Amino acid sequence: MFNRRVIVAVLVAIGLCSSAVAQQSAGPLPSWNDSAPKRNIVGFVARVTAPGGVDFVPTEQRIAVFDNDGTLWCERPIYFQGMFALDRVRALAPQHPEWKTTQPFKAVLDKDIKALLGLDEKGIAQIVAATHAGMTEDAFASTVRDWMASARHPRFNRPYDSLVYQPMLELLSYLRANGFKTFLVSGGGVDFMRPWVEKAYGIPPEQVVGSSFVVKLQDSGDGKPVLVKDAKVEFIDDGAGKPVGINRFIGRRPIFAFGNSDGDRQMLEWTMAGDGPRFAGLVHHTDSLREYAYDRQSNVGKLDKALDEAIAKHWTIVDMRTDWNAIFPPHETATVGVKR
Amino acid sequence: MFNRRVIVAVLVAIGLCSSAVAQQSAGPLPSWNDSAPKRNIVGFVARVTAPGGVDFVPTEQRIAVFDNDGTLWCERPIYFQGMFALDRVRALAPQHPEWKTTQPFKAVLDKDIKALLGLDEKGIAQIVAATHAGMTEDAFASTVRDWMASARHPRFNRPYDSLVYQPMLELLSYLRANGFKTFLVSGGGVDFMRPWVEKAYGIPPEQVVGSSFVVKLQDSGDGKPVLVKDAKVEFIDDGAGKPVGINRFIGRRPIFAFGNSDGDRQMLEWTMAGDGPRFAGLVHHTDSLREYAYDRQSNVGKLDKALDEAIAKHWTIVDMRTDWNAIFPPHETATVGVKR
Repeated sequence: MFNRRVIVAVLVAIGLCSSAVAQQSAGPLPSWNDSAPKRNIVGFVARVTAPGGVDFVPTEQRIAVFDNDGTLWCERPIYFQGMFALDRVRALAPQHPEWKTTQPFKAVLDKDIKALLGLDEKGIAQIVAATHAGMTEDAFASTVRDWMASARHPRFNRPYDSLVYQPMLELLSYLRANGFKTFLVSGGGVDFMRPWVEKAYGIPPEQVVGSSFVVKLQDSGDGKPVLVKDAKVEFIDDGAGKPVGINRFIGRRPIFAFGNSDGDRQMLEWTMAGDGPRFAGLVHHTDSLREYAYDRQSNVGKLDKALDEAIAKHWTIVDMRTDWNAIFPPHETATVGVKR
Repeated sequence: MFNRRVIVAVLVAIGLCSSAVAQQSAGPLPSWNDSAPKRNIVGFVARVTAPGGVDFVPTEQRIAVFDNDGTLWCERPIYFQGMFALDRVRALAPQHPEWKTTQPFKAVLDKDIKALLGLDEKGIAQIVAATHAGMTEDAFASTVRDWMASARHPRFNRPYDSLVYQPMLELLSYLRANGFKTFLVSGGGVDFMRPWVEKAYGIPPEQVVGSSFVVKLQDSGDGKPVLVKDAKVEFIDDGAGKPVGINRFIGRRPIFAFGNSDGDRQMLEWTMAGDGPRFAGLVHHTDSLREYAYDRQSNVGKLDKALDEAIAKHWTIVDMRTDWNAIFPPHETATVGVKR
């Protein structure tokens, strides 16, 4: 009556077990099922690394770029940097008694979800400026590290930097083992990512491209110069900004790119518009049980035009529910240890 | 009567022989004499790489930054990017008949040295805009490569990218062999450097920090996006801009820095202001026979405040004439082959 298949189906239904346990594979990318995306990735890597092959790519040109939010880690209920900003408003509130009666800070402190969802650009900019500027880069990095060590995701009750996708960690390691240099190219703040991504992804700070505020060199008074974050936005590394950021920071065109939303469309197009073998991938969030399911109608990580383009151009689309047999690392502290 | 010492002295005097042939050393850094700078470098590297030592620095933190003009290659009679700009004005002149009668272009075409030396910022900006903007990044890179293959230095009659300092090539390789990651941090244009520095220095494009114009993503018309250089300056990576550029592109503080002019002062200060073992070096141009001699009064590569600070703080100062037994690689095509 209760054979193994039924038990697995029940466990899957209540979210305690991967939908794909039976398909778990050996070899590289164990958390990827043996479906099209994994075959595309392994096939591509085999082609570009085969010495003497027509598609061989020299090591120094094996540049792989990854979006962060929704591609390498979870981005729900809102971008985690947004969660950080809200937590910072609460932490800083005692030093700003006026926030109790001043919007948009009042909405944060009162947990007024309706007001928060209705914030306009000016309101968002005020919260960002109050939590991300007017301090040194070193002080901001310490704040990010402290938050990462103490904050917990409201649904999964785990540290945010443990809500990284296990299959993507395996992909990063697999590419590096095959001579690729892996870069983050994210709309998130570059100095919000750098304090933790080396440990989480094995991607060093100098391989992180992101949005930034203007930073200025100042005399700290004790003869030691410091770098101070201004409240002025310098660069938004999203949409058409991603190829610009790649050009500015990396200076050559990637041959491999992975994203999950319309903000990654131009990065994927830019990658695919070069000569020779190229790979473009999209993570499609289809798994409401183990993670979240959203695409065309979502406020966070909207995937609409890029999905149409991926289908039309036969880019690789990962169906999270059916292509991945694991979502997050089994343990909170599990991080990839391989560098670069 | 004519013993070996006299012969060497005569050869040195007429510029045919290194002043330090007798001191040439084996082991690492063969073009460095066994004087203080070499001892400082080798001693520093030994300390930070000794496992278990008090000054040990993990590999991922071994970030070394180098200025380019005057530190890794020659910068006289004017910055080589300036020579490139003047050559480009001449090459583009047939398409701009109005330049024959319009300043500052007329001065370039007439080789009017006096007018060129008197150019104000606006005039320089006009030449730079006419030669560095309004084209795609790919087209600009091709132009730089073509120029590098055909242009010759007026005094040495060699390609500009062969006028790199042999002792510094050895230093770059030596640092990389000891686990350092080497970066260029130059006031020069980032996209002027990237097409040739990988071959010349073993430094890949993604490890080049430099000045830049605004670059925009555009539709080329055939469905393939292109990146186009605007005439608007985006970032000047010089002086106080160097720590800002290091923070933006590298995201961590170097432990080793080398420069040659006042434009490198803040980069050296920023490097030295961190904790733990640190190294700051200056190339002092003292060799009018083999290269050039200039410092406090120079228009190009002025070394004044940084020299005072280096003396006061016991930074390493390379006396080109006495500390180096070779200046340029023996052959025009000599380039370092080691990557990263």
